[in-house]
Amino acid sequence: MTDPAAPLGASEFDTATRLEPDGTGAYHLAVDPGWAVGPKPNGGYLTAALARAAAEAVVAADADHPHPLAATVHFLRAPDPGPSLVRVDVLRTGRSASQARATLWQGDRPCVDAVFTLGRLAPAADAPAPWWTGPAPFPVPPYEACRRLPGAAPGAEFTVSIMDRADLRLDPAVLGFTTGEPSGRGELRGWISFADGRPADPLGLLFFLDALPPATFELARTGWVPTLSLTAYVRAWPAPGPLRVRQVVQSVHDGRIDEVCELWDSAGHLVGQATQLAAIRIPDGVEPPPTDPARPVLGQDVV
Amino acid sequence: MTDPAAPLGASEFDTATRLEPDGTGAYHLAVDPGWAVGPKPNGGYLTAALARAAAEAVVAADADHPHPLAATVHFLRAPDPGPSLVRVDVLRTGRSASQARATLWQGDRPCVDAVFTLGRLAPAADAPAPWWTGPAPFPVPPYEACRRLPGAAPGAEFTVSIMDRADLRLDPAVLGFTTGEPSGRGELRGWISFADGRPADPLGLLFFLDALPPATFELARTGWVPTLSLTAYVRAWPAPGPLRVRQVVQSVHDGRIDEVCELWDSAGHLVGQATQLAAIRIPDGVEPPPTDPARPVLGQDVV
Repeated sequence: MTDPAAPLGASEFDTATRLEPDGTGAYHLAVDPGWAVGPKPNGGYLTAALARAAAEAVVAADADHPHPLAATVHFLRAPDPGPSLVRVDVLRTGRSASQARATLWQGDRPCVDAVFTLGRLAPAADAPAPWWTGPAPFPVPPYEACRRLPGAAPGAEFTVSIMDRADLRLDPAVLGFTTGEPSGRGELRGWISFADGRPADPLGLLFFLDALPPATFELARTGWVPTLSLTAYVRAWPAPGPLRVRQVVQSVHDGRIDEVCELWDSAGHLVGQATQLAAIRIPDGVEPPPTDPARPVLGQDVV
Repeated sequence: MTDPAAPLGASEFDTATRLEPDGTGAYHLAVDPGWAVGPKPNGGYLTAALARAAAEAVVAADADHPHPLAATVHFLRAPDPGPSLVRVDVLRTGRSASQARATLWQGDRPCVDAVFTLGRLAPAADAPAPWWTGPAPFPVPPYEACRRLPGAAPGAEFTVSIMDRADLRLDPAVLGFTTGEPSGRGELRGWISFADGRPADPLGLLFFLDALPPATFELARTGWVPTLSLTAYVRAWPAPGPLRVRQVVQSVHDGRIDEVCELWDSAGHLVGQATQLAAIRIPDGVEPPPTDPARPVLGQDVV
């Protein structure tokens, strides 16, 4: 139900991203404490709420572009759960796509700054198949063989309430981080859907694309890995059913990491992609896991 | 020379990205016709010029963050070569990173809207090695075996003047598009450097990350592929010498494509990454190339 013209459903996600016009073109958003990691609202949830505001504003500007295609999000400071104001600036309305900026404010402080490209996506049943896709769907064990990540894990230092909203089931082979034995591969993979059964849609994909733990947890035990800049693409309306999800670290360098996320739907289509740059603090003395011994080395077998 | 406190060099790139304060906190930028694809200024060039403005403003706000770490750029309308005004809004100054938005205007029209995360990168000689990198450097033939892409190709419909500024040498195996016989793999790879010998630096990486032809040219002959949203990360100051570059299409779906770009330096470090969402019009009757027959199919060997 991302079409802003349509009434919101009764799902937890639609309730938590509900906007109330303030009468001046901005929107009140109650940042929901149930979509958080510890005390901090999740970035994917905030991105989805801002996308809803951007879509409302673009449609109100007479552009038929109710769905986010691309989101680029900079997290300036973590908002607190509670009242916030979302200001939208429609940057351009076009024939096939429009752009809008949405900023989340608490008091006189901007907290999240996002720019969206919006368009119209056909519902899954009418969606065209991809013309060409390069990467193959990645392997993941059957849904029943994966294990759900709990919101309140035994012995965890804090609650991850988004895990009560998202039903995230991870491949047991990438759960080493939960017992202090990371696999060393820097990859998480599994299945994701809304816990209350709400179907996935373009706004839902924006949430799922930033809902996983950092894949660096499968490299080393560190503190939280705060996102500096997040980019997410919605490529198509997903077919029904849980989505297969993978998050992979590419490089850990000079206190920063990047990781990419993919979502594939039950029809075998790549429906969502994200990349993020985040900060990391590797504790002193923590050594990196070995890389694949078959990995080519520059100056030897590659050039 | 990306430190705004340092004088600009005499290179073509420094001249083309030179900013003149307008006295109100904005900057005059002469959009240079020599950094274009046909009549349209190149997106990587514009991104680098905006990054220079963002860095100037952040440093002027007393943050020691002269280098772009992340750039997210939305192209609203292509500017023309000639005068433009760059307005900068410092969104946040922090301890280890700052954020600023820079917008390029011509007359009363915003053309390019960019948000940057900025920080300080150690020069290559002092840069820490990556703690861990997942992907391996991709194979590419030796520099001497690759072929330089000309700015004015025989029989081409228009001049690509950035190819006179960038020295881009592509693997002969990915040059099929230049003779109407694309490889069908959706990948370009080779070496890139400044043609006038200017060393690469963080600003230069931003240009190189959006300087290649669309990798879709190696899938099918189409018209231009205009970028909707570009995200680029600068991970480290590059070591001297040409950079190995690869641009790869991931998916062509419903009139849009995404492609990723990587830059590796001579020390074997992944120093730059980019992803972009762009629009494409596949001419009627053009069939996609076959995908790898060994590619797994959902529901068969993968799940």
